[in-house]
Amino acid sequence: MNFRGSHIISVDQLNRVSVEKIFDVADSMTPYASRLQTTKVLDGAILGSMFFEASTRTRMSFGCAFNSLGGSVREIVDMKTSSISKGESLYDTARVISGYSDVIVMRHPSPGSVEEFAKASRVPVINGGDGDNEHPSQALLDLYTIRKELEHKRSMIDGMRIAMVGDLKNGRTVHSLSKLLLLYKNITFTMISPNELKMPNEILDQLILAGHKVIETDNMKVGLSDNDTVYLTRIQEERFEKQSDADLYRGQFKLNQEIYTQHCAPNTVIMHPLPRDSRANANELDSDLNLHPNLAIFRQADNGVVIRMALFALVLGVEDSVHKTSAPVKWFTDTRTTTTT
Amino acid sequence: MNFRGSHIISVDQLNRVSVEKIFDVADSMTPYASRLQTTKVLDGAILGSMFFEASTRTRMSFGCAFNSLGGSVREIVDMKTSSISKGESLYDTARVISGYSDVIVMRHPSPGSVEEFAKASRVPVINGGDGDNEHPSQALLDLYTIRKELEHKRSMIDGMRIAMVGDLKNGRTVHSLSKLLLLYKNITFTMISPNELKMPNEILDQLILAGHKVIETDNMKVGLSDNDTVYLTRIQEERFEKQSDADLYRGQFKLNQEIYTQHCAPNTVIMHPLPRDSRANANELDSDLNLHPNLAIFRQADNGVVIRMALFALVLGVEDSVHKTSAPVKWFTDTRTTTTT
Amino acid sequence: MNFRGSHIISVDQLNRVSVEKIFDVADSMTPYASRLQTTKVLDGAILGSMFFEASTRTRMSFGCAFNSLGGSVREIVDMKTSSISKGESLYDTARVISGYSDVIVMRHPSPGSVEEFAKASRVPVINGGDGDNEHPSQALLDLYTIRKELEHKRSMIDGMRIAMVGDLKNGRTVHSLSKLLLLYKNITFTMISPNELKMPNEILDQLILAGHKVIETDNMKVGLSDNDTVYLTRIQEERFEKQSDADLYRGQFKLNQEIYTQHCAPNTVIMHPLPRDSRANANELDSDLNLHPNLAIFRQADNGVVIRMALFALVLGVEDSVHKTSAPVKWFTDTRTTTTT
Repeated sequence: MNFRGSHIISVDQLNRVSVEKIFDVADSMTPYASRLQTTKVLDGAILGSMFFEASTRTRMSFGCAFNSLGGSVREIVDMKTSSISKGESLYDTARVISGYSDVIVMRHPSPGSVEEFAKASRVPVINGGDGDNEHPSQALLDLYTIRKELEHKRSMIDGMRIAMVGDLKNGRTVHSLSKLLLLYKNITFTMISPNELKMPNEILDQLILAGHKVIETDNMKVGLSDNDTVYLTRIQEERFEKQSDADLYRGQFKLNQEIYTQHCAPNTVIMHPLPRDSRANANELDSDLNLHPNLAIFRQADNGVVIRMALFALVLGVEDSVHKTSAPVKWFTDTRTTTTT
Repeated sequence: MNFRGSHIISVDQLNRVSVEKIFDVADSMTPYASRLQTTKVLDGAILGSMFFEASTRTRMSFGCAFNSLGGSVREIVDMKTSSISKGESLYDTARVISGYSDVIVMRHPSPGSVEEFAKASRVPVINGGDGDNEHPSQALLDLYTIRKELEHKRSMIDGMRIAMVGDLKNGRTVHSLSKLLLLYKNITFTMISPNELKMPNEILDQLILAGHKVIETDNMKVGLSDNDTVYLTRIQEERFEKQSDADLYRGQFKLNQEIYTQHCAPNTVIMHPLPRDSRANANELDSDLNLHPNLAIFRQADNGVVIRMALFALVLGVEDSVHKTSAPVKWFTDTRTTTTT
Repeated sequence: MNFRGSHIISVDQLNRVSVEKIFDVADSMTPYASRLQTTKVLDGAILGSMFFEASTRTRMSFGCAFNSLGGSVREIVDMKTSSISKGESLYDTARVISGYSDVIVMRHPSPGSVEEFAKASRVPVINGGDGDNEHPSQALLDLYTIRKELEHKRSMIDGMRIAMVGDLKNGRTVHSLSKLLLLYKNITFTMISPNELKMPNEILDQLILAGHKVIETDNMKVGLSDNDTVYLTRIQEERFEKQSDADLYRGQFKLNQEIYTQHCAPNTVIMHPLPRDSRANANELDSDLNLHPNLAIFRQADNGVVIRMALFALVLGVEDSVHKTSAPVKWFTDTRTTTTT
């Protein structure tokens, strides 16, 4: 796709060339995101950050990405204080707000709403999540993380083996990541979930049609055994139709140091979309793995910033001029760079 | 008036010379607002944006205007998280907050509160709306829109014909716009409203005393027939004292394509303060006019940005130095400029 | 202490040399805070401002301080929209958010939470208040205000006489200020409070051990008589165990023009942490003193900005390079500078 001036609404817009273009631009953002360099390439530009649903992490990540390119951020953070609550159409909101900014990020609880909004917007719109539907920057940062983690092991996405664990029926992130992986070749998916929360058939069918191998299991220990990457998500007990099923599976889809050591292949990368629920009744990814070198969850969050910088640079057409205004960071950053690497 | 260092609290502060000064400065802001140029004239300046009442649109418009001049924005967005809820006086709040910023925009539900606040402030305060009382930047952007729309038709405000429609009794915007029009000559006002929601007599008397012509009617079709501009506002059914009156008038003050074609003079400009209520039971301005070339409502919203840029530039005394730091916009803006003009 | 890269969690971290270092840097910030000069020393840096508890004033003060150094601010303003409400640990939040910004300010209702957060953060964290526990920048701005006010009178902190008034049992600000004053010599403290709300013994013991003189009284008029500074705080009636005690003391710990003239030594400096409650049933510091030259409460708030600028400059290691990017302010600031001085 031609990114310049485009909306980023769905992973369905992307082919392999455009995904790899995003990743290459993201790579070029690393010196800025890790505070070795600053750039003013978007000095004077304004991001309209419209979060009609709570999301601290995604909102902060987009805002910091835009600031790191030199731009300013203006925010709307809830539905109640917006004109939409007074009966304004998304068309009107889009026509007005797109006159205030150079690019818009929007999160909204209703599936399809961001696309509808984008149609009336006069500036590029990036989908920051529309209900259960799409959250393309999350899928991109997940895939980018897999690429980088495997690169460190001199491996690659084509031909890799990935396990997806948890509520695969309702999980937006595993759906979108699966769709992006359709663009790659010869992947082995192990789908680990309770029978009631299996990955939808239409996604499985697409994966098989694209030549990938799919294994389904409700036995975590079996499923974990032979992967390059394990992608964990949370299961909420209220998702089960019968309490007896919830009881049956309780605690069966958690990962901790002991299970990792016993059942995972050496160097298996551990991922999670975050936030992870660390309360005792959830705890799908135990904190005893916090210092494990293959725990990639915080690198995943860091990668969100460079992916979002790349998306902004691409839709605003500045991906090749970022370095023209670059300068060394002049404040003390040793704590940050030391701990990050 | 001398703008430099002044508060902008009420349209009553303005004479015709000062209104036209604002409009001239607003004209000079157009290249910056429409993203042909950037400026850093307020680089280092801080706007304190204090919205003690919900208003996404006005807050965003002021904030983006300030960012577009190169300044930073710090915001307070509700009453509950403010010290006012702990019994702090407006005097104290003003004395403290005015030490944090270079100019303040304030919205507050209590009429008169912004003026009281301004008296204790050490920096210029712009009224962003104080309850039913004043909202001067809205009145200015409305009048500026009329001026620009009529200019396109080689016409002018002096001598024009305007219809105001809807709840003229309670509508802050039509009151303020009427007051500003007192500064102009020989205007014909057609006030279209239910009998219960007529424009207050003191405003009508002022208009007549200033030499304008005033016609009142509760028949929309008759009132629409001979105007340069129609300014629509919403009627809320709960404004009527008797339900029988609400029933009598229901649906009588709406504008759509068919009514426009049958009853309005050719090229009549359509305005609305926004947000318009697009729910079926309101729908005072139908979406079937969305692509009509004389629908000025989104240009109205865009004009809000240049008017607010002009107000900031004037009270901070930089209206003549904006261009000194101007530079071409370096990111891709074709989507925006194409659709806007 | 070595500030570069450090967290600022508690006044207990500070010795006299480090306190005076902060004050010297704060002095150097005055031209920037009072809008004579701008600086871009933190151009490109991002402050993560995380307020998990309402605090308009402190949040604005930190944000404006960071903007005044040329940096950008990204904010989280409540608990409900944060991932913590979904069971995320402070460790995870810290690891993620510290990847988005160069320095973090955090307020949180739970004592100890900011320190716990800081341990996992990859960038310096400044405590913006953790419940009843610590609020170090408030204590520093209080002490800095005393220093500056006494300097004007050719006096100094060592050897001064200070009265603390009100709820000394629960008041975080008077506890922290007392701790900081342990670093100075030969101070006379007059602790004025109802018997039920006396300063805790461990603090009194520390003061005496450090060689200071401590007087306790529940009689305001007696206590006021011989001080350089009076530091007032609010008493809430619900703090008393018995209503009869509340009745006994009602209105006994207020200061107004008449009491000041009758009971205070000439030129006694009046301080208050703000916000003061101006409702009739509180009114601990009457507005009839608003124009009194020794009322330091608004200078106190202004000093908050330079103290916070100093803390940012020190932890980011730019305290000596602020002037390298300084430039004269180019917008009109006469209203501000005239009224401030």
